[in-house]
Amino acid sequence: MQISGKGTFITIEGIEGAGKSTAIKFIADWLTKKNIPHVLTREPGGTEIAEAIRGLFLAHHQETMCADTEILLMFAGRAQHLANFILPALQRGEWVVCDRFTDATFAYQGGGRGINLQRIADIEQWVQGELRPDRVIVLDLPAELGMQRIRTRGGNSDRIEQEKIAFFERVRQIYLDRAKKDPARYCVIDASQDLEKVQTEIAKVLAKLGEKL
Amino acid sequence: MQISGKGTFITIEGIEGAGKSTAIKFIADWLTKKNIPHVLTREPGGTEIAEAIRGLFLAHHQETMCADTEILLMFAGRAQHLANFILPALQRGEWVVCDRFTDATFAYQGGGRGINLQRIADIEQWVQGELRPDRVIVLDLPAELGMQRIRTRGGNSDRIEQEKIAFFERVRQIYLDRAKKDPARYCVIDASQDLEKVQTEIAKVLAKLGEKL
Repeated sequence: MQISGKGTFITIEGIEGAGKSTAIKFIADWLTKKNIPHVLTREPGGTEIAEAIRGLFLAHHQETMCADTEILLMFAGRAQHLANFILPALQRGEWVVCDRFTDATFAYQGGGRGINLQRIADIEQWVQGELRPDRVIVLDLPAELGMQRIRTRGGNSDRIEQEKIAFFERVRQIYLDRAKKDPARYCVIDASQDLEKVQTEIAKVLAKLGEKL
Repeated sequence: MQISGKGTFITIEGIEGAGKSTAIKFIADWLTKKNIPHVLTREPGGTEIAEAIRGLFLAHHQETMCADTEILLMFAGRAQHLANFILPALQRGEWVVCDRFTDATFAYQGGGRGINLQRIADIEQWVQGELRPDRVIVLDLPAELGMQRIRTRGGNSDRIEQEKIAFFERVRQIYLDRAKKDPARYCVIDASQDLEKVQTEIAKVLAKLGEKL
């Protein structure tokens, strides 16, 4: 896996209800206004095959999916997404804005399901080599508040979203731990604030990244 | 991944047309006659989720599946198959007869597609720990002969089976290389011989394994 060429790779992370979708729309508008070529994508998924893997991952099965399978499927989709979508866009010099990436695997499979973080890091290295997002925006809020927001949204029936508040608090904690260890690449934004304040902070992160262009 | 308890784990390997299916039927009959409890299974596949992964792997996609994705999907299914089928059977003391296993990943993805063998070994270790088949029976024959046999069979339309003779010769070579390095675990049988001779050799392998019971 070669490292990105000229583009900028941003990932948006956060637990359910943190406002990722709204943040991504805001980022897309911001980049459009600045005439910065960009693509939006998401994980798990992002290409035909990666979306098929996502479908398999989120589907209800009679059989319980074991933790290792979950991680390997995540990274199978990611390898595809990187090779056929993310890296080509970065090589064209575009910004890639991705709704979740490898931090989500650490947070959900590691923090949530309790899988050894080093095991996840080993597969990350195998798939990505040295490639990491240029900037990870973590939209942070208490799991209970996130769950409240989700409940008003309704219709959340997939396997992950049915998990409980304690699960999401563990997920949140991994995001915060990872951000703390690498403040140059991570930016934690308090997502319990008013939307306007959240967006002001996001705009600052983007402007700073844009300065490097 | 814990190592098998009391059972015996046999895998059957070989290129297309080597006669794996016929060999497996023969092995099943042999075990039944000896009143040895056993299960038959196959890779990729073997459980509900692993079969769904197999389907995704063999399906035609508009997008090209990248080599890393192929390996990760293989092992995602394998992790599931081990956890929910193979290991429980071995722990019950049964013999597990599996149509292809990790050697096929080395042979097809490594030899066939040219993926670095050490990269495959790294994932093997990650998924399986120290677990390896007790005996790998390699049904060996020239790729050209295998392809002739397949053509008379007809109806082979899946992605792997459409590959060419040169591909299968590379696959074959990996099987032979691996067998040569570990003669205690591998048994290479000349599959171009008469069926009766092939079965006599298989029966010898089984009888020797059975002596340890």
